Amino acid sequence: MKRTRVRLYVDHPLGQGQSVPVDRAQAHYLFGVMRLATGDRVTLFNGRDGEFPAEVQEAGKRRGELRCLEQSRPLMLPPDLWLIFAPIKKARTDFIVEKAVEMGAARIMPVMTDFTNSERIRRDRLQAHAVEAAEQCGGTFVPEVTELVKLDRLLANWPDERQLMFCDEALVGARETLGNAGGDKWAILIGPEGGFSDAERTRLHAMKQAHSVSLGPRILRADTAAVAALTLWQATLGDWG
Amino acid sequence: MKRTRVRLYVDHPLGQGQSVPVDRAQAHYLFGVMRLATGDRVTLFNGRDGEFPAEVQEAGKRRGELRCLEQSRPLMLPPDLWLIFAPIKKARTDFIVEKAVEMGAARIMPVMTDFTNSERIRRDRLQAHAVEAAEQCGGTFVPEVTELVKLDRLLANWPDERQLMFCDEALVGARETLGNAGGDKWAILIGPEGGFSDAERTRLHAMKQAHSVSLGPRILRADTAAVAALTLWQATLGDWG
Repeated sequence: MKRTRVRLYVDHPLGQGQSVPVDRAQAHYLFGVMRLATGDRVTLFNGRDGEFPAEVQEAGKRRGELRCLEQSRPLMLPPDLWLIFAPIKKARTDFIVEKAVEMGAARIMPVMTDFTNSERIRRDRLQAHAVEAAEQCGGTFVPEVTELVKLDRLLANWPDERQLMFCDEALVGARETLGNAGGDKWAILIGPEGGFSDAERTRLHAMKQAHSVSLGPRILRADTAAVAALTLWQATLGDWG
Repeated sequence: MKRTRVRLYVDHPLGQGQSVPVDRAQAHYLFGVMRLATGDRVTLFNGRDGEFPAEVQEAGKRRGELRCLEQSRPLMLPPDLWLIFAPIKKARTDFIVEKAVEMGAARIMPVMTDFTNSERIRRDRLQAHAVEAAEQCGGTFVPEVTELVKLDRLLANWPDERQLMFCDEALVGARETLGNAGGDKWAILIGPEGGFSDAERTRLHAMKQAHSVSLGPRILRADTAAVAALTLWQATLGDWG
């Protein structure tokens, strides 16, 4: 019985002694690509029940069965932080989703802004990307990727109690506002490459929940800005303390 | 005379009225790909003299000439901050270089650690990548990418007065150390995917210039860690204030 380094997300209840069926795609990966056999171990999580080592009971070409051993880690939820961003080119959008998972966002929300180029996203593909990132980074939680919505519609229904960190290219300084703002429900909004429109900027500045924050004197790409903003938030208000 | 959005690094002195020759590759890009003609404008920087708009004087297939107008921005040097990292897969190494430029590192230094997989890098290719990132992000400075060296050799000759921010996966908390450390010469060290070896960790902890910093409870990829570490440093000690 050798130890393996396979970490797999499954959409199935997990618990000590629980049997977990392996579907066709997973069987191909586990028993074909990774060459696991009966008695080998994998690590499972489902985003709800924490993390469990599991032993291969049956390893077929098209199906199989795993059985959970003792829980290795409890479920660890990220802070209640949404990452809202305007989708950009495919590879960089994938990257933002990956980084949001690693950095500990609870929800990933693509939005259309006045200057967003991309009018469509493949939500299912981005969600699969989030699952893969969670498998890689050792997370026990997978953030939900929501459907693309218009920014003005999102802001029109904005919850009273959720603070909004808004990364304003026009601004220098003012990071302190974050620490003073408090609250435990937050969202970070990253603009598109072309920035926000004047109408959007005016609207954002008028919201009592909005806190504008500078990301320095250089122009950051949207994917860089996402990681930088998540870092500032996590280090100031999140779970990096 | 239309305005263009071309921003170009040239290895040539710049100053008002200065004539700047266009080499074959640049002529192909400017006059072939971007279709600029005599009288059109580009923006030039050389990493030393600041930024200048320049007018096309001559636009040939294989050569051309630009002439600098009045300086549009002075040279803006980043803080004296080195980013030291262990190269990973090609695309992610490129990414680290791009991000280091955007985030304002002064020098980019690939190192081999005990657990580094990659034993070679293409320094010239990475330097070209840094130039491209500076063109894109509006920087007037291009950090030097140094040759790959061994980490233990680099640490053996470490300058007395340069502080070292060392991102330790094993650590939680301790961000405060940064703000208290002071100093204006710094380096950030990012480990390889497999982390540092025990010998490296012991050595780093014994250095009086070293300050270990946590990047949160999740495991970050090296490229994510680079952006996160640069963010913490810039926001605490750098030019984001």
